Amino acid sequence: MMFHGESDWTPVPWNRVTLDGGLWGERQRVNRERTLPAVYRQLKDTGRIDAFRLDWRPGQQPVPHQFWDSDVAKWLEAAAYSLGSHPDPALAALVDETVALVASAQQPDGYLNTHFTAVEPHNRWTNLRDMHELYCAGHLIEAAVAHYDATGKTTLLAPLRRYADTIDAVFGPGPGQKRGYCGHEEIELALVRLAHAANEPRYMRLAQYFVDERGRRPYYFDREALARGEDPTVFWAGTYAYNQAHIPVREQTEVVGHAVRAMYLYTAMADLALETDDASLTAACRRLWTHLTSRRLYVTGGIGPSRDNEGFTADYDLPNATAYAETCAAIGLVFWAARMTRLEQNARTMDVLETALYNGVLSGVSLDGETFFYENPLASAGRHHRQPWYSCACCPPNIARLIASIGGYIYAQGDADAVVHLYTNGAGRLSLGGGALTLHQETGYPWDGCVSLRLEMDAPMPFRLWLRRPGWAREASLRINGAAIEPESVTVRGYMRLERTWRPGDEVTVEFPMPVERVYAHPDIAADVGRVALRRGPLVYCVEGADTDVPLHRLRLPRAAELSAVYDEGLLGGVIALRGAALAAESDGWGEGLYRAEPPTLRPTPLTAVPYYAWDNRTPGEMAVWLMEESL
Amino acid sequence: MMFHGESDWTPVPWNRVTLDGGLWGERQRVNRERTLPAVYRQLKDTGRIDAFRLDWRPGQQPVPHQFWDSDVAKWLEAAAYSLGSHPDPALAALVDETVALVASAQQPDGYLNTHFTAVEPHNRWTNLRDMHELYCAGHLIEAAVAHYDATGKTTLLAPLRRYADTIDAVFGPGPGQKRGYCGHEEIELALVRLAHAANEPRYMRLAQYFVDERGRRPYYFDREALARGEDPTVFWAGTYAYNQAHIPVREQTEVVGHAVRAMYLYTAMADLALETDDASLTAACRRLWTHLTSRRLYVTGGIGPSRDNEGFTADYDLPNATAYAETCAAIGLVFWAARMTRLEQNARTMDVLETALYNGVLSGVSLDGETFFYENPLASAGRHHRQPWYSCACCPPNIARLIASIGGYIYAQGDADAVVHLYTNGAGRLSLGGGALTLHQETGYPWDGCVSLRLEMDAPMPFRLWLRRPGWAREASLRINGAAIEPESVTVRGYMRLERTWRPGDEVTVEFPMPVERVYAHPDIAADVGRVALRRGPLVYCVEGADTDVPLHRLRLPRAAELSAVYDEGLLGGVIALRGAALAAESDGWGEGLYRAEPPTLRPTPLTAVPYYAWDNRTPGEMAVWLMEESL
Repeated sequence: MMFHGESDWTPVPWNRVTLDGGLWGERQRVNRERTLPAVYRQLKDTGRIDAFRLDWRPGQQPVPHQFWDSDVAKWLEAAAYSLGSHPDPALAALVDETVALVASAQQPDGYLNTHFTAVEPHNRWTNLRDMHELYCAGHLIEAAVAHYDATGKTTLLAPLRRYADTIDAVFGPGPGQKRGYCGHEEIELALVRLAHAANEPRYMRLAQYFVDERGRRPYYFDREALARGEDPTVFWAGTYAYNQAHIPVREQTEVVGHAVRAMYLYTAMADLALETDDASLTAACRRLWTHLTSRRLYVTGGIGPSRDNEGFTADYDLPNATAYAETCAAIGLVFWAARMTRLEQNARTMDVLETALYNGVLSGVSLDGETFFYENPLASAGRHHRQPWYSCACCPPNIARLIASIGGYIYAQGDADAVVHLYTNGAGRLSLGGGALTLHQETGYPWDGCVSLRLEMDAPMPFRLWLRRPGWAREASLRINGAAIEPESVTVRGYMRLERTWRPGDEVTVEFPMPVERVYAHPDIAADVGRVALRRGPLVYCVEGADTDVPLHRLRLPRAAELSAVYDEGLLGGVIALRGAALAAESDGWGEGLYRAEPPTLRPTPLTAVPYYAWDNRTPGEMAVWLMEESL
Repeated sequence: MMFHGESDWTPVPWNRVTLDGGLWGERQRVNRERTLPAVYRQLKDTGRIDAFRLDWRPGQQPVPHQFWDSDVAKWLEAAAYSLGSHPDPALAALVDETVALVASAQQPDGYLNTHFTAVEPHNRWTNLRDMHELYCAGHLIEAAVAHYDATGKTTLLAPLRRYADTIDAVFGPGPGQKRGYCGHEEIELALVRLAHAANEPRYMRLAQYFVDERGRRPYYFDREALARGEDPTVFWAGTYAYNQAHIPVREQTEVVGHAVRAMYLYTAMADLALETDDASLTAACRRLWTHLTSRRLYVTGGIGPSRDNEGFTADYDLPNATAYAETCAAIGLVFWAARMTRLEQNARTMDVLETALYNGVLSGVSLDGETFFYENPLASAGRHHRQPWYSCACCPPNIARLIASIGGYIYAQGDADAVVHLYTNGAGRLSLGGGALTLHQETGYPWDGCVSLRLEMDAPMPFRLWLRRPGWAREASLRINGAAIEPESVTVRGYMRLERTWRPGDEVTVEFPMPVERVYAHPDIAADVGRVALRRGPLVYCVEGADTDVPLHRLRLPRAAELSAVYDEGLLGGVIALRGAALAAESDGWGEGLYRAEPPTLRPTPLTAVPYYAWDNRTPGEMAVWLMEESL
């Protein structure tokens, strides 16, 4: 799998990276101060925390739901990351209390699921297709790993190891075992993490089993339905493509079905492809990646246009106003893209991660951190707003854990490689074969593309420093200790590869000029025909009703219109807005008619565009990413 | 109501008008030879005809449905019109047989409804809101009137008069009467027709009662639901705006709810406004008309964009691919527009009728007359096709009766006025105060705008001849017996008014040049922004996949592109197609990406557009009315 002469790009874990202000530092502060408490309150108020008391009795409302455990797990995971980078005794106590409560729900045989312990204990493991049982286990495992990494405590890891052992005993190809797998993937990637945290290859093999078994005939979901006395063909989703279980994963060529499920599966596939150097799994990952990125990806990094299946539809079917583009799906894409970048060592896969992160993911939470989008459309008539909570509450704690762990996506390390994937203020502490290396970043990213890197180590050390050239950056300049280097001469797979013996205090500065860019969609994306989007650096922009005098459908952006980037400290917490002159179609002169032989007259109107992630944080109103272009 | 010094423009009835070839002559032939037999077969095969035997027994399938009677009635009405203009002994015998069967279902008390006689006799008149009982009565009445007009026989009229008498006894404001009205309007306009056919003002008063009672509080539908032991608020449509019963009709200002119901109601309102010279009803009709035509009308004359309520949504909400635009709704608009034209004596209301007729109505039936659209979208990805029948089968017999009665929309007559509303080959026999007048039309309409009118009468006669100048016609030329007249000098409310003592054999020729026109939508119709439609004369055009090498979303029509009108005898039964050079966005050069900084390159591609009414009569494929325009 490794490129000739180069090492694996192991991600530098979140707890070796500190963020120092900047966009992500600020988002982490809001996540810590506002989102974590807000999500906890909801978990408490809705009964999700107390479900672990297992004291639900028939007739009581609410009934602990089949995937409530996962919501608590994701909050615990998020809180653990936060504690790891920002100690907080009150939060630590709350985490300890919650961990104890979760652990207390474990059954003597290791089983740990509130719904199937308190509500329908007789139905344990009888409906993997629909009931999210292994999915909940997966999230608890991820929480346990994060908690252990953050605190060193095994109070959650130990029970979850026991539960994983139970699962390992129940599922598998051996005699008397169930040859099942979960309808909602998650356990697979969690087991890979657990295998590393616990240093126990058995969990890796179990992950491999779940991935390999998926989609085999006869379908487990069929047999399981028959065992329940149900007609397997009466499956509401109509097809096992819904949960990527229609064919074995190595035969899959198209990203299909429920988008979050797909992303979690592909993440585990890429993990296993790397772990086991599995060429056929790598090939499947590449095919699926190419299919997603060349046919089914929104410009914001959102994925899964349809509400019907919360997922994928047809190639190029990327409607804007009805885009489902679930926050969790974009988060899942970040997970997958991180693995694909490790697999491919290619900046273009990291571009997808960066786009999703700054746009389709970050839009999922309000600037104040307390309301959330489940769906992230690319156009709105003004009725789409973030909510404090959802009855299906996957997104709020999911974005909380992603923001809290963002440090884990910035750097990678190999035996003689130090990789900078993302640019943000702060530092990463890497362990290379030759010793420890701290990379200090100073940058205004994402508002400007100037980055200054200072290398700190005990002694001179030879290694390759890889600096990603973002796909949006047409140009770059590069200096080492002030001496210019021609970027093209050192660029390999989109990274500037600087190989030398580095000395303590060496400074590398890069600059990626960040002009306002127009973006055009592939001509088969019918929804975007004749339209243009605006992008600057990693940020996709949108126009909001709050900034315009005319309904957005009346706006036309002339192809030649100048747009300038203007920092506005008072706007949306301080953002660079794009400003310029557009045109507005006039309704004057239409009289009482709806149709006429002359096109609408166009008058100049000022245009302001703001980062997409920040929309719906002011007066509720319209929003559009794709603007009608006037090709004049 | 009459304009000063002018008379009422009474429509010249269908049985005084003959069509001689041309588009409508041909459509009537197909209607007669193919559609009427096809619809009868379906009525027979599905049990609708035999339901009148009243021999249904519990447990039998199918169960005579609550609105089956209306399907049979509309076929009878269509067959009657056809017999009136084209005698056909076999059809006459089938009509006689069907009439006898229908009449045999009448109950001793005059009641006539198969569902409520055979299936749930105990529930008669208990759910006017949902059960279409008076709606079915209305359609039977219309059939009876047409049958009487066509044949002079009272075999259907007499039973329906008895049924109307029964209804008149049951409903009304008198003591012991039900103060109800139908959830699906239709009886109102039918009673107006019956009043004239039977020369019985009591039926007109009953129509007036139904119209006036509608929407009054306390709501009849509420009281009726309570009487059934139901919660009136649990009405699936959620609002009585669905059936225009939310407020009294004179207070209504917006066209709302189910589009067919709305059209049938407004038709009756306009009828009554005329009959009773009712200023407040006239004002309501005008308000509703203006609202429809300035906010909620497709360029094809289709109305009612939403499948959810089969009706209206919000102003300017006119999506193309998901346009419901039910065939019956466009037919209903023809009914209403005819009355509004009579009320307003204004060519602009007749423009709406003409547009609906040639486009949104005529698209409802295939060229071979045997398959039908229920929905008439303005764009299709290739999966929308006409069907031989629908379980809710309102549209097929509705379009059959409209085509069979098309002659009734062409001329109007007053004491000293002869009006030509529509142009089509044939003759109309008018009765003016001064005597009989036959107008012979020779024209290539709708393929060209040249019309030659020959006036035939026994002796010279003074009257005003009104010739409509279609709204699409920017220019006109006019000659009387070869002598040119400046059209502007005689144009009144969109009609050329020629007042003189006419002599037998006088010839009037008009020519409306018929260039290809581009049509632009009001800038608040978001679905059409940046798009252009093509129109020539009364025909709206569309582009079909059958005529193009590229997916339709890749097409761009340059604003300056020349388009020529070319008659093609072999195309779609002989049509004028529009041909020119468009541009196609290329996908070459996009590599594996979905987004890039350069707009798609455009290469020339030939464009062919065909009349919208004729789409989906060839290889199934895409269709689009609104094409993306390139403003170069």
